Amino acid sequence: MAEALAGFRPRRRTPVETVPLAAALRRVPAEPVTAPHPLPGFARSTVDGYAVRAADTYGVSEGLPGYLTVTGAVRMGAEPDVTVGPGTAVAMPTGGVLPPGADAVVMIEYTAEAMPGTIEVVRPVAPGEGVVRADEDAKAGQEIIPNGRALRPQDLGMLAAAGVTSVRVHARPVVTIFSTGDEVVPADTAVLKPGQVRDATAAALAALVSDAGGTPVPGGIVPDDPGALEKALRAALPVSDVIVISAGSSVGVRDETAGAVARLGPPGIWCHGLAIKPGKPTLLAECGAGEGAGAGPVPGGAPGVPVIGLPGNPRSALVVFRLIGVPLVRLVGGCTVPPPEASTRARLSRDLASATGRLDVVQVKVSAGVATPVFGLSALLSVLTDADGYIIIPEEATGLDAGSEVDVILYA
Amino acid sequence: MAEALAGFRPRRRTPVETVPLAAALRRVPAEPVTAPHPLPGFARSTVDGYAVRAADTYGVSEGLPGYLTVTGAVRMGAEPDVTVGPGTAVAMPTGGVLPPGADAVVMIEYTAEAMPGTIEVVRPVAPGEGVVRADEDAKAGQEIIPNGRALRPQDLGMLAAAGVTSVRVHARPVVTIFSTGDEVVPADTAVLKPGQVRDATAAALAALVSDAGGTPVPGGIVPDDPGALEKALRAALPVSDVIVISAGSSVGVRDETAGAVARLGPPGIWCHGLAIKPGKPTLLAECGAGEGAGAGPVPGGAPGVPVIGLPGNPRSALVVFRLIGVPLVRLVGGCTVPPPEASTRARLSRDLASATGRLDVVQVKVSAGVATPVFGLSALLSVLTDADGYIIIPEEATGLDAGSEVDVILYA
Repeated sequence: MAEALAGFRPRRRTPVETVPLAAALRRVPAEPVTAPHPLPGFARSTVDGYAVRAADTYGVSEGLPGYLTVTGAVRMGAEPDVTVGPGTAVAMPTGGVLPPGADAVVMIEYTAEAMPGTIEVVRPVAPGEGVVRADEDAKAGQEIIPNGRALRPQDLGMLAAAGVTSVRVHARPVVTIFSTGDEVVPADTAVLKPGQVRDATAAALAALVSDAGGTPVPGGIVPDDPGALEKALRAALPVSDVIVISAGSSVGVRDETAGAVARLGPPGIWCHGLAIKPGKPTLLAECGAGEGAGAGPVPGGAPGVPVIGLPGNPRSALVVFRLIGVPLVRLVGGCTVPPPEASTRARLSRDLASATGRLDVVQVKVSAGVATPVFGLSALLSVLTDADGYIIIPEEATGLDAGSEVDVILYA
Repeated sequence: MAEALAGFRPRRRTPVETVPLAAALRRVPAEPVTAPHPLPGFARSTVDGYAVRAADTYGVSEGLPGYLTVTGAVRMGAEPDVTVGPGTAVAMPTGGVLPPGADAVVMIEYTAEAMPGTIEVVRPVAPGEGVVRADEDAKAGQEIIPNGRALRPQDLGMLAAAGVTSVRVHARPVVTIFSTGDEVVPADTAVLKPGQVRDATAAALAALVSDAGGTPVPGGIVPDDPGALEKALRAALPVSDVIVISAGSSVGVRDETAGAVARLGPPGIWCHGLAIKPGKPTLLAECGAGEGAGAGPVPGGAPGVPVIGLPGNPRSALVVFRLIGVPLVRLVGGCTVPPPEASTRARLSRDLASATGRLDVVQVKVSAGVATPVFGLSALLSVLTDADGYIIIPEEATGLDAGSEVDVILYA
């Protein structure tokens, strides 16, 4: 499992596009963004008070105040029309421009009006005190936002402050999602015939693709027929950055899926079968090098389109896609610093067995620091909807004892 | 701080609307969703193998196999056209309908073809083995999705499986965002005049509102003039579920903001000034009872519109909105089970002082299990963009020692 994942690093990246700031939340910058000018751009007061020469306040105290002549006031958002000379002060609002001649702002709390036009100062200030420097938030040309990390709310704030109104980001990966199986019918089928099941996987996969920053494209339901699947995959190849197939669940159908994928051309199948439970029949491939959405001229040839073949039953498919598909979609979309996952430490309510050499994903409910496994057949979706998160029993472990402390990855 | 937050529980909730399943990710169901029929709806095989009567396999072993006559095969997605009687078996694909008469499925791995039309079985099965019951994923009428928790990918899968194609959810709270200050100009202002700053807060607040499930509506920049602010607030009241004001930062302007909010009518100001750093000048209010978007007839009168007055500088405003505004927007949008937050345990790199009775929010970078505070004036947005997350020093603490273990809430 670890080997398969470490080795499967498709080269495909989506092209770069420009989006306005208002549409840039969670988008992934394709290049670092630098400050076009110093920020905030002028020395500002950080307090309400008086702009002064710091030297004029040295040695003052409650018992021995200093006296300064107030020569004017700074208005918010306007250039000062006064300067500060020796023995004078200028009234300042928080955020106002420090007037020429001043090097500090003394807080209003440490001043009092001694007589009209004169204040007394009872506490000294050091140069720079009460002031944010003109380039203290960012110097001109300084990197303010890195590439490869999805933009967070505060990043948009910083870009707005810098006057950056659009950002060059990776296009959202186009992820075509196929469901296969003669028994699978669209989710909006009101009445099922005996043996039919609605397509649960496609809806959930589309949501996971959105969460990963991709654009899900429904490929529809393909019957259990390798010719039909190959035809559908070939049509999707030039317009997809990633292809996902929730494969038929029976052995024969799985083999047919692998065959259809293999015929799509190089580089080909990376692995078929992963040491993970649930999710063993997973297939990873890269196909159709030279094709694919926005491939463009790439040194060494246009990279192929990553293809993930998922197990047939919805629960296994979703477990595997979360572990393997979500990071892959992020990678193709240029995200090299994935967002942190919510998790919590908890004590396991009971023993869990696991085979060595196999990674087990166990769904759990968490309450009062105790993680209780949700058991049920891998065909049951309710196991996933009942769960608050999951724990991973690593490949080298033979199980976990009741009471052991586990990391639960929480579903957000 | 804790008191203010525990007590400030506005009654307003957004009205209920119906959205299609494809648009329901992260939306908040207004009522529990129940299964319209049993799921999967028929007894299904969970393995490739043979449907049998379990009693026919009792006592079989590698050394003493049982022999069964294969009377047919079940096709995927189709009703079986055969039944299973004593001494007979029917070939089954994973997911196929269990034929009448059968009560278990023996895996193909434990069978072999003895002669054409006859299999030998080398391992016994118990009744129910290899089978998922017709109502094992959900009984008819059973709650499959709770209200009050935002829909996750697997929840959409479950709804699709049940044929639920639309969901009754709370409307997204409409959150009108005002910026105030004579120095504030729109983010797309290319060249600043001396003393001007671009509106960084509005862009970041809009993103936080989106994250909280709300619809941000830009209210624009209001000059430092209580009449202008009151007029703008009155216009926003009937079309907002929440109003956010990033208030001017100087003392006088803050008082004017409070005055304008107070004149909007009952219930009025809940608190003005919070024991939090940064964020002290925060104002919480509920105004204009009887007005507001979609208020409708509510017993006891239509509830007011929650109003949050934020500190003037962007960093403080974002810290406070994340702590107080995001949960409020969720609450108004009917979300009673907020999603888990990403966090990590780390050791503090240095001592941190804090005043008792004040909650401190300290921005940190996290690397190799060590949380290093990012210091800088509260006017600096770069402190937030540099940080990976934040720690909270509770009100009762006087500080934290270097090396102490802290919970870092991570920015996603």
